[in-house]
Amino acid sequence: MSKVRPISGFPEWLPSERIVEQHFLDVIRETFELHGFASIQTRAVEPIERLSSQGEDTDKEIYAIGRLAGGAAGVDGMADSSRDPKLGLHFDLTIPFARYVLENAGKLTFPFRRYQIQPVWRGERPQEGRYREFTQCDIDIVDVGELAPHYEAELPLVIADAFSKLPIGPFRIQVNNRKIPEGFYLGMGLTDITTMLRIVDKLDKIGPDRVGELMVAAGATAEQAKAALALAEINAPDDSFVERVHALGVEHETLTQGLAELAAVIRVGAEQASGLMVADLKVARGLDYYTGTVYETQLVGLESYGSICSGGRYDALASDGRTTYPGVGISIGLSRLLAKIMPTLSASRSTPSCVLVALAEETDRAQGMRVAASLRQRGIPCEVAPLAAKFGKQIKFAQRRGIPFVWFPATGDQSSDSVKDIRSGAQAVADAESWMPPTDDLRPRVLA
Amino acid sequence: MSKVRPISGFPEWLPSERIVEQHFLDVIRETFELHGFASIQTRAVEPIERLSSQGEDTDKEIYAIGRLAGGAAGVDGMADSSRDPKLGLHFDLTIPFARYVLENAGKLTFPFRRYQIQPVWRGERPQEGRYREFTQCDIDIVDVGELAPHYEAELPLVIADAFSKLPIGPFRIQVNNRKIPEGFYLGMGLTDITTMLRIVDKLDKIGPDRVGELMVAAGATAEQAKAALALAEINAPDDSFVERVHALGVEHETLTQGLAELAAVIRVGAEQASGLMVADLKVARGLDYYTGTVYETQLVGLESYGSICSGGRYDALASDGRTTYPGVGISIGLSRLLAKIMPTLSASRSTPSCVLVALAEETDRAQGMRVAASLRQRGIPCEVAPLAAKFGKQIKFAQRRGIPFVWFPATGDQSSDSVKDIRSGAQAVADAESWMPPTDDLRPRVLA
Repeated sequence: MSKVRPISGFPEWLPSERIVEQHFLDVIRETFELHGFASIQTRAVEPIERLSSQGEDTDKEIYAIGRLAGGAAGVDGMADSSRDPKLGLHFDLTIPFARYVLENAGKLTFPFRRYQIQPVWRGERPQEGRYREFTQCDIDIVDVGELAPHYEAELPLVIADAFSKLPIGPFRIQVNNRKIPEGFYLGMGLTDITTMLRIVDKLDKIGPDRVGELMVAAGATAEQAKAALALAEINAPDDSFVERVHALGVEHETLTQGLAELAAVIRVGAEQASGLMVADLKVARGLDYYTGTVYETQLVGLESYGSICSGGRYDALASDGRTTYPGVGISIGLSRLLAKIMPTLSASRSTPSCVLVALAEETDRAQGMRVAASLRQRGIPCEVAPLAAKFGKQIKFAQRRGIPFVWFPATGDQSSDSVKDIRSGAQAVADAESWMPPTDDLRPRVLA
Repeated sequence: MSKVRPISGFPEWLPSERIVEQHFLDVIRETFELHGFASIQTRAVEPIERLSSQGEDTDKEIYAIGRLAGGAAGVDGMADSSRDPKLGLHFDLTIPFARYVLENAGKLTFPFRRYQIQPVWRGERPQEGRYREFTQCDIDIVDVGELAPHYEAELPLVIADAFSKLPIGPFRIQVNNRKIPEGFYLGMGLTDITTMLRIVDKLDKIGPDRVGELMVAAGATAEQAKAALALAEINAPDDSFVERVHALGVEHETLTQGLAELAAVIRVGAEQASGLMVADLKVARGLDYYTGTVYETQLVGLESYGSICSGGRYDALASDGRTTYPGVGISIGLSRLLAKIMPTLSASRSTPSCVLVALAEETDRAQGMRVAASLRQRGIPCEVAPLAAKFGKQIKFAQRRGIPFVWFPATGDQSSDSVKDIRSGAQAVADAESWMPPTDDLRPRVLA
């Protein structure tokens, strides 16, 4: 057996870090439920044909799976004799959700609001904040045939509500509408919109000069590339961006529509959560299924880290040929977010246990277990000492884990139970049927 | 794109079923934390060499993964040029946990109590209660060098505590100790213990006659097979099994040790949770890493369905050659359990929303959103109507989802907000800053 070692791109947390992650997951779930989103989970696998061709890089990022035929074969030795389609691990939660909607349409009520918190897998090169396995927290709303545009303004407000309860500092949700660059490019006479959008999506990564060059290489004139870059530079916290786009002198019906839609979203944002959303016309998103509003989210002061929460509207992803279920969704990249801010956070202890029940003798274990059962009955997490030992040793055991209280059951020379706060040293007689720790000590806390 | 359809062995829940599953997950997590287990999660993948050779069927059940090289290739077209080892999806949570302990030993405190709730994957033939993707809820305790035997009695008590809070009816935890059949077989002169244990493990599935035949085919005499079957037939709710084993007339040091260990576990069980545990000497478990106590759990009245919670003690799984970390663990097969009992359960509604905020006019949406924000501030899940419509239509929208309350914000002709319980029809003036629903209505409930 080879030595154990981490696998690049598959991060894991230590127990105290996991407490921080679990706090984030709890707050996010609670917020999603307060906003009326129902939980679903989808299988980890989808037919590869459903996963592929959704964007420039997705095909090569897909992990295919197959049963190991036997013996010591590696991935070359896989075979699956079943009639199932070839399967791959999902790389987002939107494509599985769209499939779930199609599969269960008759059993769902629309508009359908769902949240989904699961790992996804991408076989890309691991780098800072980019993993091969990572957790996404998605909310989406889909409807039948038509989807009301007010949902495009609602989703970022849900995210803002969640983020405002988490120790992540200030953030900014950047909103664009794909119809704006699309209409703008069409208005200039460019036709290969998908290619142009993918190039502009790299703006933050490769800079405007290189984007201009790539656009020209892809068939744009220098003037068209320049105008496209001028469009991408526009951003505003209000609907003033509309005027600035008009000033560039390009006109197209799709452009007009995109500007109206984005202005509506930004106005609701300004009204319900001032300062939260900005219109940012360079936001494009790499995935091909988006058709209107698109979102990205930056941590203020950490803009170069890239987006930690993204999404958009997709009109045609969920369609069975007869009926289409347009949707809009946004996804918190939890692993990516935590990778950046985990060093600034800690947990008040590394275990849920609030109390360690000490044992004077191993023969006292049954009694200790009854004390623990009584504390748990009233919601106090606790554990019984691993072995009877000198009390000093048992207190050290609690200290190493950050357990704040040690309980001493009554013994021959002491007629009552007592409990010691090992931080202050204060010890008092206590009854396992009624004693409660301070509320702040009941569960591990996350400290910023 | 092919038509969407379920993939055999990869089940998914509808939103109301997911509410039931989530309730189970919440109760299980809460119980594990009350017993002082810390949460961890491990990556979905392990090197294949670490997964394989852990039991008779495990090799062919492993799903290998590999990056799709490009284009439309299936699993045959996979390649991974990185230097990473060949990877497969984990088929349990014990092997990944043992690896995690080795990898992080210097950063953990021992004895280490952890719980882990994640999906696992097995490429076996799907059948009732057997899936290719399913969720396991594990608790384990590991220590350095030596592991105190009292943990073997503690783990089933934790499971019993969780199960007693869930609507699953009566259950029975069957406990055995591998040293008993092992010592018994050695005492009779049999030596290929692993093969014999694997055969006896099939007893419930193929019956005693076939087990006897297979044992003889594997090298046992007819008399040895008969004695092994007599051993497997012994079960008892107390330590009376010890006498019955002695009466079979076989002796071996390992047998004596196993009997003493099992008797100790059963005695603690009888004392702390009478009627919960039985000694059942046919329990063997298919996985090779178990070395002592093993557990299975039956739903009373549904014994033929097989075990819904299993585990055991493993002394050598986590070892780096210098240090060994013996452990004991038990795992709730949540997907398997729910597959059986989901038809007997339902949720009181299919959405978290307790309140639907109705809209008389689309221009009232901003006001409706402020009402909703105020309700959420006080922990009341709610959503705003998808569009302004006749109130009767909005009430029907709520009814279809089981949302109990519809809120009517103040409008031109009504100076106050009001809220209607759509089950009783009772409507009353209400203030979004102070109104609370009955506690029972706040969240969806699980109904048995």
